[in-house]
Amino acid sequence: MRRQEEPLLVLTMGCPAGVGPDVILAGARDLVRLPARILVLGDARVLRERARILGLSPPLSLVKTPEEARAGRLNLLSLSELSVQPGKPTLEGFQAMVRYIREGVRLCLSGQAAALVTGPISKEGLAAAGEPYPGHTEMLAALTGAREVAMAFWGERLRVVLVTTHLALKEALKRLSPEAILRAARLAHRFLQEDLGIKRPRLALSALNPHAGEGGLFGDEEARILAPAVEAARREGLPLEGPFPADSLFFRAASGEFDLVVALYHDQGLIPFKLLHFRDGVNVTLGLPIVRTSVDHGTAYEIAGTGRADPASLIAAVALALRVATHRLCRPQVPPDPDSPYRLKA
Amino acid sequence: MRRQEEPLLVLTMGCPAGVGPDVILAGARDLVRLPARILVLGDARVLRERARILGLSPPLSLVKTPEEARAGRLNLLSLSELSVQPGKPTLEGFQAMVRYIREGVRLCLSGQAAALVTGPISKEGLAAAGEPYPGHTEMLAALTGAREVAMAFWGERLRVVLVTTHLALKEALKRLSPEAILRAARLAHRFLQEDLGIKRPRLALSALNPHAGEGGLFGDEEARILAPAVEAARREGLPLEGPFPADSLFFRAASGEFDLVVALYHDQGLIPFKLLHFRDGVNVTLGLPIVRTSVDHGTAYEIAGTGRADPASLIAAVALALRVATHRLCRPQVPPDPDSPYRLKA
Repeated sequence: MRRQEEPLLVLTMGCPAGVGPDVILAGARDLVRLPARILVLGDARVLRERARILGLSPPLSLVKTPEEARAGRLNLLSLSELSVQPGKPTLEGFQAMVRYIREGVRLCLSGQAAALVTGPISKEGLAAAGEPYPGHTEMLAALTGAREVAMAFWGERLRVVLVTTHLALKEALKRLSPEAILRAARLAHRFLQEDLGIKRPRLALSALNPHAGEGGLFGDEEARILAPAVEAARREGLPLEGPFPADSLFFRAASGEFDLVVALYHDQGLIPFKLLHFRDGVNVTLGLPIVRTSVDHGTAYEIAGTGRADPASLIAAVALALRVATHRLCRPQVPPDPDSPYRLKA
Repeated sequence: MRRQEEPLLVLTMGCPAGVGPDVILAGARDLVRLPARILVLGDARVLRERARILGLSPPLSLVKTPEEARAGRLNLLSLSELSVQPGKPTLEGFQAMVRYIREGVRLCLSGQAAALVTGPISKEGLAAAGEPYPGHTEMLAALTGAREVAMAFWGERLRVVLVTTHLALKEALKRLSPEAILRAARLAHRFLQEDLGIKRPRLALSALNPHAGEGGLFGDEEARILAPAVEAARREGLPLEGPFPADSLFFRAASGEFDLVVALYHDQGLIPFKLLHFRDGVNVTLGLPIVRTSVDHGTAYEIAGTGRADPASLIAAVALALRVATHRLCRPQVPPDPDSPYRLKA
């Protein structure tokens, strides 16, 4: 393969005051070894200054257009020119961080880039910059016109998709339905099969109650919601098994029995995932017309500029995006939808 | 130390048709190396027959009284003489399994034995044998007159205590209160300090909602119930910290930052615990006047007699009981209570 033909991955820097610049700089030498053209959408001044603070001299090359991006180095399209102190976010920084995302989405939707890898942003920053989205995922869903998305987490040992995400646990329990479970299972199955080339993915549904309800003794959701979801899934050919008692299921999945666990609420999936993949976990958005992976950590303002930020999650996120990009081209399947349900109501 | 002075640990065989006999036989050579006199309360005929099936010849010595028990071998007080097929539980077996427990409790309460380690029983068996207790723990609480007990799990990497146990998740959420959390934290703290000799145990309280509620955005239990519990704990000198987001807390605890996590519901504690300690976890009952540890698995009828049952949990349970027994004498602090709240209402 000629170097120019390697897929173009765009990597947004995230909030300039967070650890986004740190992990890009710290991970640079590993990233440039990947068979990809990596284009950082960020801020040359911030990266230069952060490299000085951290005592690093990464292989960064400034480019003026995405076409100039080459493999073997970290190409930087500088979309802002800020003076930012590590750990001290500013409104200009928030606005720039939004610009990186919008440009990244544009490059993917136009087919110029094969995947989007996002650095850490702050939800407060998004709001301060005037964006009507509660988080990264919702913003990307709206910008790409996706109607159904799901949050998934990817690691060597464990993969999970969440049926519900950022809700009070009590509220999450109310939102459980066979439809919601099916939605997550379908997106996960499609991801495993179409995007990763796993021919016969094995999916398992986690139970909600202790011992999977112990035959109805501890709750009826297994019989009322979960078993019907598994049946419906099988009727449409989805290889979903369960519901299995949650306390042993994640061990079984991590031992190789299942490719992915469909988890019912945020902590049910993320307690085991972070236990195994605290440093190198990848967040993946399923259901977008573009490939999107993300670091699995936040802006971590308190350690920005200290050299303590670990680039393992970023490197894993780029590697997974590259793997997916080899399986599909990054083309919009639907046009952006101004009435996307992920757009927050005013 | 003279061998006779080594502490006497009683080990109940559990349901004769389950894997209790298997793990005792498979673990025997490791168990007899411990500096303890181990007294199995079980069935000589069942053990002999199971050893034949498994092709094992363990160092079992029949004794007529607990005083005859010696270190360096597995002493067996045979309390039944049954013919049982592995995997085929019988009423006589259930009745015998209850007898082992009652005798074990009696030996501990009288001060003859220093600790009780229990093999796996079935809840259905308990009911079939006419016992009014929903499980092992409740039966032991009633027999020893304990008023407040808690279920804890012990492993090299992670320790947890549960605030609520065998309840539908929805119901567990309703039962959360500062008092319930304090109760579990107090028992756990006492266990770590008095029974294990950890001078300054560090306890962490897990949050209920994603991101510990994200400042009230995803649920109010953190502010309404959990933070007040932590404050109340600190007022009485309990070193309880938190509430911390559950998804990172278990990683932090497993990395050595905390000695034990106070988990709010069954799966919150057991998902991470079983992920790390599926094979070698120990179940400990806190709050009993006697020392009690247990294997962390069930009767596993489907693999009884096959040689596939792993004795790691039993060995760890005996080792932990021994460690605790060196820290306290097994004496009743309160007389058995006929009105124990752990006795099921008719």
